[in-house]
Amino acid sequence: MTYDECIQACLECMEACNHCYSACLQEQDVAMMAECIRLDRECADICGFAAQAMQRNSRFAKEICNVCAHVCQACGDECAKHEHDHCQRCAEICHHCANVCQDMAS
Amino acid sequence: MTYDECIQACLECMEACNHCYSACLQEQDVAMMAECIRLDRECADICGFAAQAMQRNSRFAKEICNVCAHVCQACGDECAKHEHDHCQRCAEICHHCANVCQDMAS
Amino acid sequence: MTYDECIQACLECMEACNHCYSACLQEQDVAMMAECIRLDRECADICGFAAQAMQRNSRFAKEICNVCAHVCQACGDECAKHEHDHCQRCAEICHHCANVCQDMAS
Amino acid sequence: MTYDECIQACLECMEACNHCYSACLQEQDVAMMAECIRLDRECADICGFAAQAMQRNSRFAKEICNVCAHVCQACGDECAKHEHDHCQRCAEICHHCANVCQDMAS
Repeated sequence: MTYDECIQACLECMEACNHCYSACLQEQDVAMMAECIRLDRECADICGFAAQAMQRNSRFAKEICNVCAHVCQACGDECAKHEHDHCQRCAEICHHCANVCQDMAS
Repeated sequence: MTYDECIQACLECMEACNHCYSACLQEQDVAMMAECIRLDRECADICGFAAQAMQRNSRFAKEICNVCAHVCQACGDECAKHEHDHCQRCAEICHHCANVCQDMAS
Repeated sequence: MTYDECIQACLECMEACNHCYSACLQEQDVAMMAECIRLDRECADICGFAAQAMQRNSRFAKEICNVCAHVCQACGDECAKHEHDHCQRCAEICHHCANVCQDMAS
Repeated sequence: MTYDECIQACLECMEACNHCYSACLQEQDVAMMAECIRLDRECADICGFAAQAMQRNSRFAKEICNVCAHVCQACGDECAKHEHDHCQRCAEICHHCANVCQDMAS
């Protein structure tokens, strides 16, 4: 596992989560999407934070990736419950990023 | 207008917006709150960004405060439409921060 | 330990670190301050991140506070090595925030 | 000019600035690099902020890109003064991002 691979996974996950967040806020059943909205945003934030920590060679990068893995897992699990294309796609990308970050952290 | 006064206004606005965001996601009429949720989060982000720019004496602090003023105004206008206590309180704090940031920017 | 107390500690630490960062970049012996500059910025970032996570009732707030405690400790230890007033003041505030975040995380 | 193109430019600029920031802090002539360090970090921050604003379809994306263009221009101009490879490469990427963001903003 290289930093480059993990940075790439985090930036893709950030983009998918931001897109899913914005799309969820426009869904008719927005009430059902509340937890998805919340987690999309948390996940985008920590993915961006982790990517930048790795880009700057922070000595805390692995610790941050460990938290990032947990948020990605939770966000992926929530997204997987919803049938919208943006949620299904986000779930897949989040779960991939969770695995990559977990490898980086260990 | 001093940096300290504007930093204080931005940090109070960040807190009010984050609280309103979290509360809106738990409201029963969450569909009606979609725009409030979106703007609360944008406003919290730019307020935190502006506060840190001022704390670091960024030469771009005034430009950032100018954008912050516009986001605060939009967020305050949206919050003011909703009767929830957290929205009414947030509206007031956002409008105050919009004024303070506009003064700083000019 | 309440969220409010920990948020307050994080925001004070963010401000002290941003001020120390900006001041270090203007010191004559900037080469000696490189690690202080780096850690000040990392510490300000994670403190702001942790404060916002608590303000939004993130379920990951404690995990983020745990990382924040480690960054604050490292930053406080580095700042304590330097005699500049901004470093000594920052060291004290970082060590306080490290303790508060550690309590929150446990 | 599409959002995708501008997001891509911002994320590449964020990475180049974070890399240059970290490399500058390890240079022997760190005192000469103080302004470069400061601007690299500001530029990485606003580029990440702008990219996420576009990814979320923020109505303030263009305003944020306008500020981003100014920071990228200043950072590129500073980096161009230094002969280190990471500075020269960063200058080029910053100036490209400044142009792309200016197009987006107008």
